[in-house]
Amino acid sequence: MRWSELAKEPCSVARTVSVIGDRWTLLVLRDCFLGVRRFEAFEERLAIPRPVLADRLRKLVQNGVLEKTRYQARPPRREYRLTRKGLDLYPILMAIVHWGDVHMSKGGRPLLHRHAVCGHRFDPVMVCSHCARELRAREVTVEAGGLRSRA
Amino acid sequence: MRWSELAKEPCSVARTVSVIGDRWTLLVLRDCFLGVRRFEAFEERLAIPRPVLADRLRKLVQNGVLEKTRYQARPPRREYRLTRKGLDLYPILMAIVHWGDVHMSKGGRPLLHRHAVCGHRFDPVMVCSHCARELRAREVTVEAGGLRSRA
Repeated sequence: MRWSELAKEPCSVARTVSVIGDRWTLLVLRDCFLGVRRFEAFEERLAIPRPVLADRLRKLVQNGVLEKTRYQARPPRREYRLTRKGLDLYPILMAIVHWGDVHMSKGGRPLLHRHAVCGHRFDPVMVCSHCARELRAREVTVEAGGLRSRA
Repeated sequence: MRWSELAKEPCSVARTVSVIGDRWTLLVLRDCFLGVRRFEAFEERLAIPRPVLADRLRKLVQNGVLEKTRYQARPPRREYRLTRKGLDLYPILMAIVHWGDVHMSKGGRPLLHRHAVCGHRFDPVMVCSHCARELRAREVTVEAGGLRSRA
């Protein structure tokens, strides 16, 4: 299978991975959620070659994750903003941050998150939409046409 | 910045991305959570070249995400199993699946998930560990040494 075929795979992981399954793309998205919007700001923070950054931003716009909008008319200046579809990537990014905090950071967490709704520092927890209990891999079964499996 | 330097970055996204930020790795992990354990089974399902698969599995073992254990002595046969660190990747995979279900699947979800604890089909929801309310990007602030930002 080629990467270009991933988007056509009848699997939601493969389809998502076809959009975000790239290291630079994930770091660009991290910066988007930290409020970065301008090309030069991404470039400065990420220290990646301009053509690579331009390519990743272009693909995110093509996939409807970012939108490029003009914020200044003269001279024309544009910025990249997360769309609704892009904002919906937040649980993925938070899960990535949390795993890194727990398993990859020596000497403490680089960033601390505070929930503006309740005012407290928090960890993200993934729960079941029905019973609200925390989801664990071994307590979830998968059903599909012919495929039945338990992790 | 080079990819090989990502693991040293003082950022939990960069560190996690250094382990899982690769398309094939994410698809290998998807299969691990679906119960796939043997090299040949990964190979058959993913249709990727053996050296690429071997490389990705080796790196996941090196990073403590999978462990390679012998399940048969003669002839020796080994399988790959998720470690505790690997099982903790579950929220990332579930978030990826859910985003793909919502934003990338035309004509329905390829797989359905059922929570064995409550017996219901569900969506994964990421909530605050303190107030249990759903986390939204715009309701979370980030604090660090000098860095203050709101997505």
